Formats: sequence, structure tokens, C-alpha cells
Amino acid sequence: MAGYGESTTRIEAFSDGVFAIAATLLILDVTAHGPDLGRDLLRIYPSYAAYAVSFLTIGIMWVNHHTTLGLMARVDRAFLFINLFLLMMVAFIPFPTRLVAEHFTGPEARAAALAYGITLTVTAVFFNVFWRYAIRGRRLLRDDAEPLVVARISRSYRPGPFIYFGATLVALLSPQGSDVLYGLIALFYAAENLVVRGGPEDSGVV
Amino acid sequence: MAGYGESTTRIEAFSDGVFAIAATLLILDVTAHGPDLGRDLLRIYPSYAAYAVSFLTIGIMWVNHHTTLGLMARVDRAFLFINLFLLMMVAFIPFPTRLVAEHFTGPEARAAALAYGITLTVTAVFFNVFWRYAIRGRRLLRDDAEPLVVARISRSYRPGPFIYFGATLVALLSPQGSDVLYGLIALFYAAENLVVRGGPEDSGVV
Amino acid sequence: MAGYGESTTRIEAFSDGVFAIAATLLILDVTAHGPDLGRDLLRIYPSYAAYAVSFLTIGIMWVNHHTTLGLMARVDRAFLFINLFLLMMVAFIPFPTRLVAEHFTGPEARAAALAYGITLTVTAVFFNVFWRYAIRGRRLLRDDAEPLVVARISRSYRPGPFIYFGATLVALLSPQGSDVLYGLIALFYAAENLVVRGGPEDSGVV
Amino acid sequence: MAGYGESTTRIEAFSDGVFAIAATLLILDVTAHGPDLGRDLLRIYPSYAAYAVSFLTIGIMWVNHHTTLGLMARVDRAFLFINLFLLMMVAFIPFPTRLVAEHFTGPEARAAALAYGITLTVTAVFFNVFWRYAIRGRRLLRDDAEPLVVARISRSYRPGPFIYFGATLVALLSPQGSDVLYGLIALFYAAENLVVRGGPEDSGVV
Repeated sequence: MAGYGESTTRIEAFSDGVFAIAATLLILDVTAHGPDLGRDLLRIYPSYAAYAVSFLTIGIMWVNHHTTLGLMARVDRAFLFINLFLLMMVAFIPFPTRLVAEHFTGPEARAAALAYGITLTVTAVFFNVFWRYAIRGRRLLRDDAEPLVVARISRSYRPGPFIYFGATLVALLSPQGSDVLYGLIALFYAAENLVVRGGPEDSGVV
Repeated sequence: MAGYGESTTRIEAFSDGVFAIAATLLILDVTAHGPDLGRDLLRIYPSYAAYAVSFLTIGIMWVNHHTTLGLMARVDRAFLFINLFLLMMVAFIPFPTRLVAEHFTGPEARAAALAYGITLTVTAVFFNVFWRYAIRGRRLLRDDAEPLVVARISRSYRPGPFIYFGATLVALLSPQGSDVLYGLIALFYAAENLVVRGGPEDSGVV
Repeated sequence: MAGYGESTTRIEAFSDGVFAIAATLLILDVTAHGPDLGRDLLRIYPSYAAYAVSFLTIGIMWVNHHTTLGLMARVDRAFLFINLFLLMMVAFIPFPTRLVAEHFTGPEARAAALAYGITLTVTAVFFNVFWRYAIRGRRLLRDDAEPLVVARISRSYRPGPFIYFGATLVALLSPQGSDVLYGLIALFYAAENLVVRGGPEDSGVV
Repeated sequence: MAGYGESTTRIEAFSDGVFAIAATLLILDVTAHGPDLGRDLLRIYPSYAAYAVSFLTIGIMWVNHHTTLGLMARVDRAFLFINLFLLMMVAFIPFPTRLVAEHFTGPEARAAALAYGITLTVTAVFFNVFWRYAIRGRRLLRDDAEPLVVARISRSYRPGPFIYFGATLVALLSPQGSDVLYGLIALFYAAENLVVRGGPEDSGVV
């Protein structure tokens, strides 16, 4: 009924909303109190770091969500529901972010770091399902989606779950080490996006 | 004044926003605390389930909202207000979700399960009003909206209020049984969307 | 630089977001607690009423915001800032809504009802400024915006601030009477939108 | 792959969402309590002022974000990430706003005013990076973006970080003086937008 182009437009509107809201809600969990507010503003540095890492992580996922949807000509109902499960994980991220911000150190740090890592591992798994479903037999792809670009994206998504799972396991030894790894992974993905795919041949591709 | 096509675009922007925000706000009610955060993260499994069921339920309604709006060529003012009342119910869902998450078991579980069920029953009623208003005499439908598709959608929406009302009544006997039913209904609608309507003739329709 | 049509598209995206978020955030202030959750769910009926009245009020303003923007061909920077002040008032509505929900009766009811009424009075004033600025000398209007429609809209907006100010003054005698009036005004505007403007000549206009 | 025009459309949808949500969330931090709600509603005037100043500041940034994106024909991946860091700062604004609202006077006022000022200073720095990246060698500009307009925008953004840093330093002497300056800067930018750029030659430019 609806044109194919419209189809991806619609899924984008809802998805953009969820990504933007999940990222912006993160600030509600950054809190500081007196007495001695100045000292408290320094003491809560894990809150700032958790905010920045989660905002960046959600932002990178949004960029990738758009890159991949931009290669698709149509969506089907199964894909809509896969996308819904992916968004459910993205919108879940503020919860473990709050835990890590509150328990960066102390006896609860391990549980918080594990919760964060498990959330991101499952999210990365869903991202791979999302992409694999779309490209199987070029099911949802545009005719002009270049196989090389598609293969490059597949290659860059595949290690995601393993990387996050590895960083999660580190929490068993050192929760703080694990948290630092989550931040480094976000920075790495940001940099990789800039370097690996930012070649002249697709400088205008978003 | 405005073209008919524009009309549905406008109602979609506001509606998409409400659906996306209502779904994403759900995470604000998932909370865990120390001491023994690890144990608390396991103890709050009803929060995760309530989050997932409500996110999925809102997501399915969003898919259906779009499917139906995609069949319409125009909206009128009465329809705008019917849509507004429907959105008012959708945006209400986070409240009973929070109640079920907090009171999955215990003496308040019945009241929480009833509140959730009544909310979804009324929402399903509004969804039927929304659709019936649009199709009466093909009032708002596109010329190319196929009668068979329209009839199939009407058939799939009609039992909604009865199903939810039935699951609500179960709460009088067993609140947990009722809560499980709400989850199964969401999964059933997701599956039904995939199977019943996902035939080859409309695989690209969203 | 940008085409005129684009200009109103842009202002709509941001405005739609603010309207949708302000309406959906209202649910965060509906809360119920045990012991005896069932009784508490009945006791908080002012919360439901305040939620419904504010959601409907914000929704009506959104409909009117779109009706009026649909008649405009362009926006200028002054209009952008008038719109920004209007949105600042719309996004403020959840605050007095929370006050009325918490203090429908009791010694603080008068202050709560006054806060709600003053907020809506100022909002109605801004709505008139917004519309008057746009139509003065047909500054921002489309060439095909019919003078009769423009005059009818002006006539329907003009009494708004006076009606809300009158309802606000009633709070000095009876806070509950005032709160009921706010609800009746919302219902009246909804009905008026349906009846007065829903004539056959503009049934497709949103 | 995607057309250049689409590229800026996509970045706008996510950015509009973040701007609108960050502005609308501000109201969650305006709270008043009984006993003597009427007096409390007057006592919290710093909350209203902080709400208004931050809403206006975010709104002005949104206007500028759109003005500048409207001059661009394309975005690249580096720009997407610069935009992401800018949005991360914009979405952070509700946090120091809450601090200033709670601690306008008293022993914690200085820390609150410094936090607000540092946030806006860094945001202004990112806005300049955002704009400079886009215009260097006309990297992302449209062919018809007039050099005079581009130069005028550059000139108007350049002092931003210094103005905010100066107002931040004032907090060391007088936190309230600093807070008043933040408000005046917002009003000045609003007025400057209206006067300096609102000439007849670009009255339709948003």
C-alpha cells in the first residue's frame, strides 16, 4: 500500500525518537547535593563519565541505525519487530548507566558493571540480528547498495557482541577496569567510524 | 487548505512523539538499590518483565497506528480528537506499568494488575473507535485501500477489548496469572502481525 | 536561503516535539502507593482528572498550532522567538498540573488552582500574540489563506485569555470550582473545534 | 548512497529531538511544596528564572543549529560526531539548571553558578567547532551559501565562549551577578538574532 521509501521514513521517525529520548533522559540521573556542593560536583565524576559514555554509545548506534536504514529500500513486519526489540534494549541503557554512576566504586561496583556490560552485549547481538535479517539474500536492501559497503558493515558489526562480552567478563576481576573498557569501546567505535568508513568514496554517506 | 497527504503527516509527527516518549519513559521506573545490588537486580525481575511487556505493547500499537494511518487519505477534526484521546491512553500506560513492577506479588498485586488491565482495555476500545470512525462509509480511507485489507484489520482489532477485559477479570482470581496473560497477549499480537498479515501480497506494507 | 515551505516544516518539528513531550511527561506525576493500593487508586482521582485536562489542553493547543502554521507560507526570526516563548509556557504546564493533582482539596488548593489558571492565562495570551503577529498585514500568511477563515480563527482565540483569567479568579472563591472550569473549558474548546469549524467546507483542513 | 539533502534531514530529526527533550525536561526540576504552597510558589522564583533562561538558551541554540544546517548541502561522519558532542552538552544543561534553581542564594550558590557557566562555555566552544568544521574550505556548505552570510554568522559565534567564560568568572565575586548575566546573555542573543540578522534581505531565512 505505502511506497517503499515511505516505509523506512516511518520506522525512522519512531526510532529517532527513542534514540533521542533515551540519550537525553540520561541527564536525569546526574545529581549533586550540598552541603559542600563544589566538592560533590567533583566527587560525582563517575556520573559525568557514565553520562558521556552512554550518550556517545547511543549516538553511535543512532548513526549506525541510520547508515544501515539508508541502504534499505523497504521494511517488512518481521523487521519492524526486530527493530522494536533493538529499541527496547537501547531505551534500557539509562538504567545500568544510573547503576554505574552510583556504584562506580564500592561493594556494588561489580554488579553495576556487569549489568551495564550485559545490557550492551545483548544490544550488540540485536544490532547484528537487525542487520543480518536485512541483508540475507539482500532481502531489504536497495538495488544500488554496493556489496562491498554491505560486507564492510557486516564485518564491523560482527565483533561487537564479543567485544562487549569480553569487557563484561573483566568486571569479575575489576569493575572499574570494565567500566573504562566500555568507554574505550565507545571512543574506538567513534574513531573507527571516522577513519575506516570516512574514505573519500563515501564522504557524503550518512 | 492543507493537502490531504500533509494532514496525515502532521498527525503522525505528534503521535510518533507520544508513542516513542511513552515507551522510553518506562525505563525511569526500573530501579535497583544496594546493599547487595546483585541480589536486588535479580529480585526486580517483574520490573524487567513489565518494562518489556509495556514497551512491546506500545510498539505494537505504534505499528498498528501507522498501518491504519497509511490507509487513510485525509483526517478531519473529529478524528484528530479521537486520536488525542487514544494517545492520552497510550501515554497513561507507564503509570500502571510502574504499579505492576512494584507490586507483582504481595497484598497490592491485585489492584496493580486490575489497573494495568483496565488501562489496556480502555486503550483497545479507543483503538477500535479510532479505526471504526475512519472506515465508516470509507470516510477517511484512500481510494486504493482494498476492502479485503480493511476488513481483515477490523477483524483483528475487534476482539482486543474483550481479550484485555477477560485478562483483567483473571486478576480477581490470580493477579500474577493476569500479568502473565498481558505478556502473552503482547507476544500473540506481535506473532499475529508477523504471521497473519505478513503474507507475500503485502510484505512491503507497513 | 531556505524555501518558505521548509521554514514552517522546521518550526513544526521542534514544536511538535515540545507539545508531545510536555503531554507525555504528565504521567510522571501520577503516583499511587500502598498500603491499600486499591483505595489509593480511587483516592487520587484528581490526578487522573488533572492528567486528562492538561493532556487535552496541550493537545488542543497542538491542533491549533498546526491549523495556524498550515495557513502560513513563511516564518521570520521574530516569529521564531514568539513561538519559543509560547512553547516555554506549554512546557511549563506539567508543573501546575502536578500542584492541582496533589492539592485538589485541602488548605493549599487555592494556591494550586491559581498557579494552574495563571499559567493557562499567560499561555492563551502568548497564543494570541503568536497569531496576531502572523496575520498583521498578512505578514506570514499564504496567498490562498482565506480572509474568512483567518477572521474566524482570530475571533475564536480572542476570548481565550479572558475566559482563563475569569476561571482563575473563581479560585479565590472556590478552588475546586475553578479546577472544574478548567476542565470544562478544555472540553468546550474540543467541542467547538468539532462543531464550529468542522463545517463541510473545511472538513479536510487540519 | 543517500542524497545530500537527505543527509541533513536525518541529522535534524535526531538533533531536534534532543533540543526539544532537553528543553521540555527542565520543568521536572521546578517543584513547590506545602505547607503554605502560596508562599513557596513565590519563594522559588529562581526556579522559574532558571527554567526560562535555560529554555530560551536551548531554544536559541536550536534556532542557530537550524540556521547553520540550512546553509549546508551535506554532512560527513566527522561532522556527525562533532554534532553528537554538541548535543551531549545541550542535553547536559538541565543538570546545572537544577543546581542554580536550588542554590540561587546560600553557601552553595557559587558552585552552582560555576557549574552552569562552565557548561555553557564548553557548549559555546563546541558550537564554534561545529560551525568552523562545516565552513573550512566551504567543506559542507551549499553552493549558494553567500560568503557574507557565512562571515556574519562566524562573527556572531566567535565571542560566545569568551562571553560565557567571563560571566562564569563573575561567579567568583558574585554568584547572583553571574546568574543574572547568563539571563542577559540569552536575552541579548535573542534580541541580536532579531535585530542584526532580521534585515529585509533574509526575512524568510530560518
